[in-house]
Amino acid sequence: MAILFSSILAGTILIVYLTLNVLDKSPGNEKTEKISRIIQRGAKSFLFQEYTIFFPIVFLLSLLFGFSSGWVNAISFIIGSSFSVLAGFFGMLIATKSNARTAWGATKGIGEALDIAFSGGAVMGLIVSVLGLAGLGIVYLLFGLQAVSYYSLGASFVALFARVGGGIYTKAADVGADIVGKVESNLPEDDPRNPAVIADNVGDNVGDVAGMGADLYESYVGSIFSAISLGYALFGASGITSTLYIISFGLISSILAIILVKVLSRLNTEPALALRSGTIASSVIFLAFSLSYAIMDKNMNLFWTVLVGNIVGVSIGLITEWYTSGKKVEKLAHSAAMGPANVIISGTALGMESTAVITILIAVGTLISHKLGGLYGIAMAGVGMLATLAMNLSVDAYGPIADNAGGVAQMAGLEKGVRDITDKLDALGNTTAAMGKGFAIGSAALTAIALFANFGSIAHIQQIQLQDPKMFIGALIGAMLTFFFSALAMNAVGDAANDMVEEIRRQIREMPGILAGATEPDYGSCIKIATKGALKRMVLPSVLAIASPIILMLGLGVQSVAGLLIGSTVTGVALAIFMANSGGAWDNAKKYVEEGHLGGKGSFAHKATVVGDTVGDPYKDTAGPALNILIKLMAITSIVFYSIVGRWIQ
Amino acid sequence: MAILFSSILAGTILIVYLTLNVLDKSPGNEKTEKISRIIQRGAKSFLFQEYTIFFPIVFLLSLLFGFSSGWVNAISFIIGSSFSVLAGFFGMLIATKSNARTAWGATKGIGEALDIAFSGGAVMGLIVSVLGLAGLGIVYLLFGLQAVSYYSLGASFVALFARVGGGIYTKAADVGADIVGKVESNLPEDDPRNPAVIADNVGDNVGDVAGMGADLYESYVGSIFSAISLGYALFGASGITSTLYIISFGLISSILAIILVKVLSRLNTEPALALRSGTIASSVIFLAFSLSYAIMDKNMNLFWTVLVGNIVGVSIGLITEWYTSGKKVEKLAHSAAMGPANVIISGTALGMESTAVITILIAVGTLISHKLGGLYGIAMAGVGMLATLAMNLSVDAYGPIADNAGGVAQMAGLEKGVRDITDKLDALGNTTAAMGKGFAIGSAALTAIALFANFGSIAHIQQIQLQDPKMFIGALIGAMLTFFFSALAMNAVGDAANDMVEEIRRQIREMPGILAGATEPDYGSCIKIATKGALKRMVLPSVLAIASPIILMLGLGVQSVAGLLIGSTVTGVALAIFMANSGGAWDNAKKYVEEGHLGGKGSFAHKATVVGDTVGDPYKDTAGPALNILIKLMAITSIVFYSIVGRWIQ
Repeated sequence: MAILFSSILAGTILIVYLTLNVLDKSPGNEKTEKISRIIQRGAKSFLFQEYTIFFPIVFLLSLLFGFSSGWVNAISFIIGSSFSVLAGFFGMLIATKSNARTAWGATKGIGEALDIAFSGGAVMGLIVSVLGLAGLGIVYLLFGLQAVSYYSLGASFVALFARVGGGIYTKAADVGADIVGKVESNLPEDDPRNPAVIADNVGDNVGDVAGMGADLYESYVGSIFSAISLGYALFGASGITSTLYIISFGLISSILAIILVKVLSRLNTEPALALRSGTIASSVIFLAFSLSYAIMDKNMNLFWTVLVGNIVGVSIGLITEWYTSGKKVEKLAHSAAMGPANVIISGTALGMESTAVITILIAVGTLISHKLGGLYGIAMAGVGMLATLAMNLSVDAYGPIADNAGGVAQMAGLEKGVRDITDKLDALGNTTAAMGKGFAIGSAALTAIALFANFGSIAHIQQIQLQDPKMFIGALIGAMLTFFFSALAMNAVGDAANDMVEEIRRQIREMPGILAGATEPDYGSCIKIATKGALKRMVLPSVLAIASPIILMLGLGVQSVAGLLIGSTVTGVALAIFMANSGGAWDNAKKYVEEGHLGGKGSFAHKATVVGDTVGDPYKDTAGPALNILIKLMAITSIVFYSIVGRWIQ
Repeated sequence: MAILFSSILAGTILIVYLTLNVLDKSPGNEKTEKISRIIQRGAKSFLFQEYTIFFPIVFLLSLLFGFSSGWVNAISFIIGSSFSVLAGFFGMLIATKSNARTAWGATKGIGEALDIAFSGGAVMGLIVSVLGLAGLGIVYLLFGLQAVSYYSLGASFVALFARVGGGIYTKAADVGADIVGKVESNLPEDDPRNPAVIADNVGDNVGDVAGMGADLYESYVGSIFSAISLGYALFGASGITSTLYIISFGLISSILAIILVKVLSRLNTEPALALRSGTIASSVIFLAFSLSYAIMDKNMNLFWTVLVGNIVGVSIGLITEWYTSGKKVEKLAHSAAMGPANVIISGTALGMESTAVITILIAVGTLISHKLGGLYGIAMAGVGMLATLAMNLSVDAYGPIADNAGGVAQMAGLEKGVRDITDKLDALGNTTAAMGKGFAIGSAALTAIALFANFGSIAHIQQIQLQDPKMFIGALIGAMLTFFFSALAMNAVGDAANDMVEEIRRQIREMPGILAGATEPDYGSCIKIATKGALKRMVLPSVLAIASPIILMLGLGVQSVAGLLIGSTVTGVALAIFMANSGGAWDNAKKYVEEGHLGGKGSFAHKATVVGDTVGDPYKDTAGPALNILIKLMAITSIVFYSIVGRWIQ
């Protein structure tokens, strides 16, 4: 455990250093500072209101767990929930401190801007890993293995709320701002005359930063939980030790890689090269550590499973990139010449087609890692994908900071060169993040399979009886739930966006000075409406995920729950890949046209690709990523709930 | 078996009578006759070319079956394929004979038009049932039960080709005609100046008539096959006898109901009332027969399972109607005020949401019918849904005839009152057909579950081992295949539509007289391009369905095939419901606007709903319905292929 402790400590020191480093920079002039402050206030206010909704639920659930299965479990659940909240909140806080500073840094050059934005992102990346491991260590050492399932449940529970709530907010604000601002009033992106412009920037922070942080905290914790519990079941304590070694190597490698990127950016290295070097370095160092450990421990299969996980993750990332850029996107953009319907049909088909190679990669990865290490091998392949999370998430979180910095620069009227730099950094983040997305999708599938096996062994289901249709019924319901859940999320975005549109129209109508630039719009009111809209609509989908395995277990027994997990996982994986890649391709097709192809901005083709992009927004940023959490949350809920009521049901 | 024979005989007599009845009517004036002849020629030419593609494959497969598992099986496979072809071809032939006659009949009044159109549809409805039962009887009596699986495979194989090929054709022609005709050249629907107008009408026949006929032939045969094989496994010969009684009652009830509709239409009853009376009568008579039989046979559970199937089928139909009409559609239409992107998002969410209630209905139906009669009960619930297929399909096939009649009337320049009558009949068909769709979706799910159980018992899989991830891998691949298959189908529509658009544009460009009405466009060339486009693109998706269970069985063994069937069924059911209902709702939202709401034709909202309708076309008429066939074809392929190679694999 010494290595776990040291890596957590090293991570903590780096977090403190990076935080001070960011705060040390100048937030710019009065205007940039003010805009940044409004964004920060809006984002914080959203999170605080979000907490008031789910804290009572967490509290009630922990009471329930306390009375039914012991207070150590209740406390573990609370630790899982609150560490997730903490990671999301602190990471977002630093991100909102970094936006104006990045914009101001860009006035000095791209190296400085990259340095600040990346530092802000790295705080998020590191804090998720550090808190994830620290919480796990505390719960495991104090309360033992069973309590870790409650810890993991807490993490997943918060993640679903944060992903869904943040996803609704960010897309409602984005869609609302686009419809009235760009389409109806012909305002450019991030124009300060648009009443929803700040809400849109707040959305980037609560959705793409805080929501994603909670999401990956959940993935990280879930994959480690499934690995240590399967490892323990198969190999005893040594199964746990080797998992913790591997995951610690991942954190240490990430720390080294983050330092590398910092050094390179200060040396004014080309940003693309700096980020890519960091990503590659983290993987290489991690694999080197793992290999040495496996050789010392005479357990080569452990290394091979980790390597398989890594290769599958990278391959999924490359396939994702292939489907959402280059020729595929050009072809999609060209379909715009025939109008928006063709963009939608072609983009839908593109996303659905992309499920093929990715699923086969996951299947092959599962098969090989199972051959190498049994069910524990599958779980370890998932851990192998996520071990260097701190580095990957740093890049992921750096994107929205650069994006926000661009918004601040635009609104504050900084010189055009600044916006060019932040745009470049933003675009770069999108490309490098594709690999991170591959890891997230792949690990979700592997972790869900491992959790399913876990549920099977806890509920003593060695086999599924084919003569009994309960499994099949559960599977039908599981598959349906992923569609129903997506429907709820998309409807929520649509309804919340409607509220936004009405508010923006009202402001423009009632305050004629806004469009002329004479009156400042009421940004706060837009932020409030987006917050209210998102929060009230995030509850039903989240509750659904928790309630359905419980209802099915009580109503139809464990065989149907096994079916539920099969159906939701396989359908959820396909649906999530489809939505992520259709959405990504539509986004980039629009950008391709905006670069001047097919008539460029304002052309018929451009309008058609804007329709695609708008449809893709809730796909890729609300429903899609939430599905990855949904399938794991249902599995963990099944595991925990069975441990409570299992003795009373068959 | 006497009752089976009598019902087949009665059905045959009625087919002959109805055919003579249709042919007896006047095909109208020179113009209507000529247009009808061109449509007929185009449709026939498509089918013949389709046959030249899949006959060689059928021939090769039957050689393979002959050598590997005996010539009786090969012959059964050929009977299944060719009876399906025969049903589709003959039904479509009469449908194309009915269109001009219906249009001409409408000049005499709505009763006469209904009489002719319904007679044409009823020929299709009856011939599918009669040939389905006759083929089954022949194969079973001559070759025994195992050969029936090959018979069923033949039916499913042809159905997938016919559905996919016809679906691509009809939508490519439709989309092509709409894009250039309506949008670019401002021509109304069915305008003879549109070069693709005849291809569009041909599409209705090859897709909505011949394709649907083959589809339902497959459903009918598949559900009976799964019931008699499970019935035999559980109860011996009496399990087969009772199935055949029930299915014969269904045919007899349909015959009586068809006669009732004929009588009512001649009495000039309100068409809606006439059709609805027929649908209800067929169900009531069928249930009464089944009840009497169950009482005599002292086997009340048989009746209850059939009743459950019927109730679930009707309920799915009602839910389908609820989601694709009335308030839901009005709300969808209102989202058009915010542009096409919102129409797509709302319609997608609507379709995904609709999976919830329908899946729960299927789940409850499965559970109850299993309680009543075990796996045989599930299969019988499916048979109960499809027993009155002849009547339901009559209504389904009558719709496109009325639609075609409208096209003929328009192109031939008949008075406006004629078009009003055919439009009314067409709209009516859409509503009544919703119930038929409910039966198709529900029975596909139940039959797939029953076939899965069938595969399990043939391959001696009593259980699925949870420690072995092969099942899960198979399930992931099965889920993915439904998405990939849909992508292929949608891309095929898009690409074939592109070819059409270019050809239409070319004609309009090169023959300036077309738009002025002075030169007749080259209809034949559009028909040829749609035919070529559809046929070359139908092969890959169809082959995929056959190849994947075989590859998986050889590569990973039967556990993975069990997973494949679970994954493809549960995901396919959800995806099919989603696509059918999103597509239906978009279609009706457009019609709602065209009725004059929200600004009516040509308004901003209208354009937005046209985008929705265009996206929905390949959803609801190509990919969606083909998925129902796909999941059963994979199951039957697994059953048949295991019977060939099972002795060599574990």
